[in-house]
Amino acid sequence: MENASTEPMIVTFGLGESSTAVGRKTDLGEKAWAMMELAALGAPIPPGIILTAPLCGIYLSNGNTLPEGFESSLARELERLTGKNGRRFGDEKNPMLVSLRSSPYVPMRYALKTVVNIGINEEIVRGWADGSVEARFAWDAYRRFLRSYGEQVTGLQPEAFDEAAEDLFSRDGVEDDTGLDAEAMEEMAQAFLAVYSRGGAEPPPSDPMTQLVRAIETGFREWDKPATEEYRLSLGLEGLPGNALLIQSMVFGTAPGISGAGRFLSRHPVTGEKTLNGKYLSAAMGTDLTAGTRMAEPLESLFKEAPQLREQIVDWQGKIERHFHDAREVHFAVEDGRLAFLLTLPAPRSGKAGLKIALDMVDEGLATERQALKHLDPLLLNEFLHPILDPQAAKNPLTRGLPASPGSAVGQVVFFAEQVEDLAAQGVKTILVRHETTPEDIGGLNLAQGILTVTGGLTSHAAVVARGMGKCCIVGVSGIELNYHLQEMTIGETTVRRLDWISLDGSTGQVYLGQLPQIQTGLEGAPARLLEWADRHRTLGVRANADNAKDAAHALELGAEGIGLCRTEHMFFEIDRIPLFRKMILAMDHVGRSAALADLMPLQRKDFMDLFRVMDGRPVTIRLLDPPLHEFLPRGIRSQNRIAKAMGITVDLIQKRIEMLMETNPMLGHRGCRLAITYPEIYQMQVRAIVEAACIVTKEGVAVEPEIMVPLVSTARELDAIRRQIDPLVQQVMAEMDESFPIAVGTMLETPRAAVCARTIARRADFFSFGTNDLTQMSFGFSRDDAGIFLPTYIEQGILDKDPFVELDYAGVGGLMRMAIEMGREGNPDIKFGICGEHGGDPASVRFSHRMGLDYVSCSPYRIPIARLAAAQAAVLAEEDPP
Amino acid sequence: MENASTEPMIVTFGLGESSTAVGRKTDLGEKAWAMMELAALGAPIPPGIILTAPLCGIYLSNGNTLPEGFESSLARELERLTGKNGRRFGDEKNPMLVSLRSSPYVPMRYALKTVVNIGINEEIVRGWADGSVEARFAWDAYRRFLRSYGEQVTGLQPEAFDEAAEDLFSRDGVEDDTGLDAEAMEEMAQAFLAVYSRGGAEPPPSDPMTQLVRAIETGFREWDKPATEEYRLSLGLEGLPGNALLIQSMVFGTAPGISGAGRFLSRHPVTGEKTLNGKYLSAAMGTDLTAGTRMAEPLESLFKEAPQLREQIVDWQGKIERHFHDAREVHFAVEDGRLAFLLTLPAPRSGKAGLKIALDMVDEGLATERQALKHLDPLLLNEFLHPILDPQAAKNPLTRGLPASPGSAVGQVVFFAEQVEDLAAQGVKTILVRHETTPEDIGGLNLAQGILTVTGGLTSHAAVVARGMGKCCIVGVSGIELNYHLQEMTIGETTVRRLDWISLDGSTGQVYLGQLPQIQTGLEGAPARLLEWADRHRTLGVRANADNAKDAAHALELGAEGIGLCRTEHMFFEIDRIPLFRKMILAMDHVGRSAALADLMPLQRKDFMDLFRVMDGRPVTIRLLDPPLHEFLPRGIRSQNRIAKAMGITVDLIQKRIEMLMETNPMLGHRGCRLAITYPEIYQMQVRAIVEAACIVTKEGVAVEPEIMVPLVSTARELDAIRRQIDPLVQQVMAEMDESFPIAVGTMLETPRAAVCARTIARRADFFSFGTNDLTQMSFGFSRDDAGIFLPTYIEQGILDKDPFVELDYAGVGGLMRMAIEMGREGNPDIKFGICGEHGGDPASVRFSHRMGLDYVSCSPYRIPIARLAAAQAAVLAEEDPP
Repeated sequence: MENASTEPMIVTFGLGESSTAVGRKTDLGEKAWAMMELAALGAPIPPGIILTAPLCGIYLSNGNTLPEGFESSLARELERLTGKNGRRFGDEKNPMLVSLRSSPYVPMRYALKTVVNIGINEEIVRGWADGSVEARFAWDAYRRFLRSYGEQVTGLQPEAFDEAAEDLFSRDGVEDDTGLDAEAMEEMAQAFLAVYSRGGAEPPPSDPMTQLVRAIETGFREWDKPATEEYRLSLGLEGLPGNALLIQSMVFGTAPGISGAGRFLSRHPVTGEKTLNGKYLSAAMGTDLTAGTRMAEPLESLFKEAPQLREQIVDWQGKIERHFHDAREVHFAVEDGRLAFLLTLPAPRSGKAGLKIALDMVDEGLATERQALKHLDPLLLNEFLHPILDPQAAKNPLTRGLPASPGSAVGQVVFFAEQVEDLAAQGVKTILVRHETTPEDIGGLNLAQGILTVTGGLTSHAAVVARGMGKCCIVGVSGIELNYHLQEMTIGETTVRRLDWISLDGSTGQVYLGQLPQIQTGLEGAPARLLEWADRHRTLGVRANADNAKDAAHALELGAEGIGLCRTEHMFFEIDRIPLFRKMILAMDHVGRSAALADLMPLQRKDFMDLFRVMDGRPVTIRLLDPPLHEFLPRGIRSQNRIAKAMGITVDLIQKRIEMLMETNPMLGHRGCRLAITYPEIYQMQVRAIVEAACIVTKEGVAVEPEIMVPLVSTARELDAIRRQIDPLVQQVMAEMDESFPIAVGTMLETPRAAVCARTIARRADFFSFGTNDLTQMSFGFSRDDAGIFLPTYIEQGILDKDPFVELDYAGVGGLMRMAIEMGREGNPDIKFGICGEHGGDPASVRFSHRMGLDYVSCSPYRIPIARLAAAQAAVLAEEDPP
Repeated sequence: MENASTEPMIVTFGLGESSTAVGRKTDLGEKAWAMMELAALGAPIPPGIILTAPLCGIYLSNGNTLPEGFESSLARELERLTGKNGRRFGDEKNPMLVSLRSSPYVPMRYALKTVVNIGINEEIVRGWADGSVEARFAWDAYRRFLRSYGEQVTGLQPEAFDEAAEDLFSRDGVEDDTGLDAEAMEEMAQAFLAVYSRGGAEPPPSDPMTQLVRAIETGFREWDKPATEEYRLSLGLEGLPGNALLIQSMVFGTAPGISGAGRFLSRHPVTGEKTLNGKYLSAAMGTDLTAGTRMAEPLESLFKEAPQLREQIVDWQGKIERHFHDAREVHFAVEDGRLAFLLTLPAPRSGKAGLKIALDMVDEGLATERQALKHLDPLLLNEFLHPILDPQAAKNPLTRGLPASPGSAVGQVVFFAEQVEDLAAQGVKTILVRHETTPEDIGGLNLAQGILTVTGGLTSHAAVVARGMGKCCIVGVSGIELNYHLQEMTIGETTVRRLDWISLDGSTGQVYLGQLPQIQTGLEGAPARLLEWADRHRTLGVRANADNAKDAAHALELGAEGIGLCRTEHMFFEIDRIPLFRKMILAMDHVGRSAALADLMPLQRKDFMDLFRVMDGRPVTIRLLDPPLHEFLPRGIRSQNRIAKAMGITVDLIQKRIEMLMETNPMLGHRGCRLAITYPEIYQMQVRAIVEAACIVTKEGVAVEPEIMVPLVSTARELDAIRRQIDPLVQQVMAEMDESFPIAVGTMLETPRAAVCARTIARRADFFSFGTNDLTQMSFGFSRDDAGIFLPTYIEQGILDKDPFVELDYAGVGGLMRMAIEMGREGNPDIKFGICGEHGGDPASVRFSHRMGLDYVSCSPYRIPIARLAAAQAAVLAEEDPP
């Protein structure tokens, strides 16, 4: 907490004279900052007071006590807000009411929502109604106060107020509150007071200042709850002093005359066109728009009543865009024909709209490239990367699952991977439907149009493989009854049989019956232009996870600067390799293993040569064998029989070996570099293949930059032992081939212990690549394969904000990473840091990666454009007022 | 590194005048410190020079460069060592040779061993042999130098020197080097030089000072290797600047006259009697004693030759004990009748001897209680806690496994847990032999005399359960072929059948055929006296892991101060509970679960009442349900059938439910508090049972201190959500029962994420209990159930020093714990810290726990005396010169 801030703790704005100096966004929060900007522009806004974030910090660090003299300062500022209309806070005849809302630095769960009409009580209602306003209006204001104070400050349930209101509506036979008269409004206020007493709570204090102070303290205290703290840390907001609060004098859309509440957008949210869009509700307040109890109307309905407002709004539409360098959403009220802007936020936008807005803003001279880059959600690039279902087509949604890989797929249902392969040979487009997939299904996964699995989460085998292939995939569709025997699936009343057509939307998780039309746009043109800017402004490298030359070539097209993760085990699953690899596993001794490995070597060397040629001098990080050996052996008796026959051994031997290799927790078992400690010959083969391949293509005149990556290291001596195997071999092979170039040797950083001991491990490593999938599994103790059972409940209940396998858990897993980075640099100042795994293509995780000072992220080819844009945004955002 | 030390970097001792100021052990290391103590005592020692640890630190931080002027300082000090015999370093006629050895703060792997006879070269050999000594003696000295320099400094393999020596022995037809003449010695020197050239290495430098400086640099550099650093961190030695080195002028046990090398112990290593014990080898050096190539003789053989030495040694035996307050081992040389002490260490001792020595030292006024407590390995208390096999009995060892739980067991072999139960009812003593055990075997495990499993490691199910019961157990006996069908096992040629007698030694892992006699001593008398001292001097609390009143009562007898871990799931395995618990699991909805839980509640409440009554006001930490539900369902079809019949449901339903619950990585699955997020009714039942039980016994006048422990927390909001279930229920039940007392609610800290985020979690927790088993699994990514495949290789290859499931990994897992402690205190200054799980009873782990500032350790009842002693030692050691 920054007590020593020289900024004032209480800032008043919108009075004309004080509206030039705008404070720091970290002190003011997003909403209050934007209101001050509007004030500086001279926009029509109600005046307001900002209680800054540092003040919140002082309150909390003083044991939840407001500073000496706070109330009198606040009273003085409130007095200054007294408007031309003579409304004064606490006045019994002509009261000024105020709203209070949180103004967090970024939109945040666990913050006070809006409390409206503070400063009212029963006496004021009567005095007010006696003097300047109608009784119905005054009672309406009071019941609105009672409800929002009750929900936000006292902590009463919204449902209790809903019920009380419904009772009145049905008694009076009206649809909503517009049908209620003054008396009924008074009754509603009494009914709302009864909600307090039924909930065992005191009614709100009647003194206006006490109301306001209680609400302020509630807002401040929200910041200090463990849940809020944890949420904040998960957003990476460690350095903020507190939440600012925004007090605004109320503008009454419920007043007589032309009054109401509305919103407008400065550009169209779907097309991005510069048209004026919005909605309006007369005789209403902003909360009525949100609640949706009454149907909102288009802006035209307002302009019909008050044509002069059209010009005003259009004028401000332009001024605000020019000022904020972006399309904005503005919330406004109209009180007796007078316009007042209450709030402004960045405008919502689709991918297409966002792209158009960004380019247009720059072309219109309203924004710089850096400014324009900030506002497009990188994930919306998916709309251009994959074919999407035609939005115009009529659709028949069947069920819905988790959107595991974006894009769309249209094809005929099959239930076995082998059938996909057979049908593909005949040109039939299929969608593979399985309970779950396994590495054995790889052939079918490769050839299917899309994948649907009944079980599994966003990081299940099917999901990961599909994303890697850029193929549409939906997982966790729990309502499906699958019958492999009959080759059909039942969803509710519908039965889908083999070869029936279905269509998948991988961005929403929707499954449709039938053959829907698809649209493919591609990155050419506008998206390419935006990505060019992104490359110009980002500092974080973007590499691809690619296991073969084909994927590598594709990654290059999408903008990859290198390969950050080549999983050598994927090479072993190829049809010509897997028998040899299984022979190696089934060998009972070193001699047998070595013989099988010797047969594999030339194949793997060829793979690396192809990869090096495609990457043409760019870095290629090759991970040595990682998964446990049993993953390579077939589970099904049919496959076992086939293999036994092909290899001329007994099924019994295969089963015995599988039993020997089976593990209780394979994730924490005999895998990664542990394999190389017990079976050194495996890595020796792989290293020889890498170095020989590099030497051969060097002789062809192709530049190479191979990086050898050791997986699953948890101690320095482990890496030391493996380097004592690898390093001499690298030298020896180079000497044999009469070549010499540097080969970096580094390690995956994926066990929590490695993070804690990074200083020592870094002394033996040229680079650390964070394996955030496994690091997340081990840090939380969440098995990716099993967490599907409880993670949805966790997210539903708000215990987690996001699936930590999708968005990097910055507070926890990120804490280990920050430790590893700091200590790794201590141990080896030249060490490089990267991240590979699913998080490398997630925008928030890319932002965290930039912030932690990584050198690069690595992700599936299809995620590369997303990572490029996210990296640019991270660089731009890092310059702005960072917490 | 502490550059600013005011101590001198080079310390000379043993010259009479300088021998009073003894430096800090952290600067001198153990061996050099002890030599300075002997010098201060005026004992007969060769003078020496200590290169202190800070000097090593300076060398390393200056990029492996010795400070300016170092060589001339060293030369000056060497000059001062010039003896009465006129030997001078580098002199060609009468050379002083020196030895160099590491003097680490604690005995340490990865340190320079001894290099002897530095300062010799071929010219000196010839000059020396020309002048004062015989040629054979001079060449012998030279070849000894060549070998030790070659192994320690140049890094040549010992085997190469062995082979060279063997060649000469066989050529000359002699057994060992005593049979070689001067010429042969010269030839051996040449042969040793040839080992250098064959190894591609330069011969040692001939300049004496260069030899010494190279050896010094090698010794210093050893400190800086990543492997050494990691090893040091694993011992908890973070703060040391480097390794001290000890230079001593050589005393020649190979000289003419009465010369030789020997060792004596001031007390008997097995009985602890104050007798003089030792061994001696004439015409030899200390390394010959270690190598064991020649048979050592008793000390009497020396006293026969030189009777005056008996009195001298006996005199020093007393003086040294009085000075060091302990029994000591002393290495000495005799050169031409003159005695010289070369090294002194604490004397080795058995449990019985150690106990006697400790008590006698105090009774004889040689040591205080605190001093006497330090020297007994706490694990040796096992000799008193469990029956041991009579050491006098003739034994027939059959095979050997891992000693998983100490003590001994004698009984008749059975292969099924049910049979143990049946036979126990007939009074038959059995030993249960299984591949591995499961929770279903609990009845048999309870009643068997001992347990033998073919697979499994030191933390397998059988091992953990057996240690909890204080029952002898041997695991991982890989040579056994088990045939459940025939009910027999084959070990090599021997077949052991059902009901054959075998005997187990759980301290060594030895398995014997037949019925061996056992001895049981118990803690009464001497051990109890020592433990009384331990309790007086320790500050760390010692609690027990106990799941029922019987274990709790036993733990109290053994000195427990509370229960640190009551695993409520163990209660569910009881014969009258498991059907109800299974009913709960098999229920498909909330209603069914609640009904089954309601039936369980009174049983669990009764358990807690019994526990509270026994513990009588001491703290009782109760862990809510932790394991995944599938652990409670039977795997075998026979058991499934039995249960289906008993419950009146189909086997199919049971199997379906098991399939639904099965997990890929159960360790990281749906367990711990995750169960309570999805099935809140389970913890609600348990909490009600705890609070009702506490209220009932309170009414009986029994004091209670219940602590409710939530397992497997990884986020603050998780604990928050569960406390929002628990806290109101606690209040509600107390109100119902009209009682009120504090109930602490805390959490296991066992996921790495919880450690990283401890500050926020601590705000919702009254205590943290480190679940170091799971924390170790997740930090390393080692599954306890699967690591048995590779951990032995890791330890064999020195990648790990200890099984991290046995001794807490201080560097890695301990790093997370230190972080959690620091941040936990920040979040909640009143929070208490404990450790439960296997490490709570391991002496080194107890020491680490003390050092990290935990409040208590909790361990199996049988480990409590060990923990008490270890805790006292930790407190005493913490006062001494800590790094």
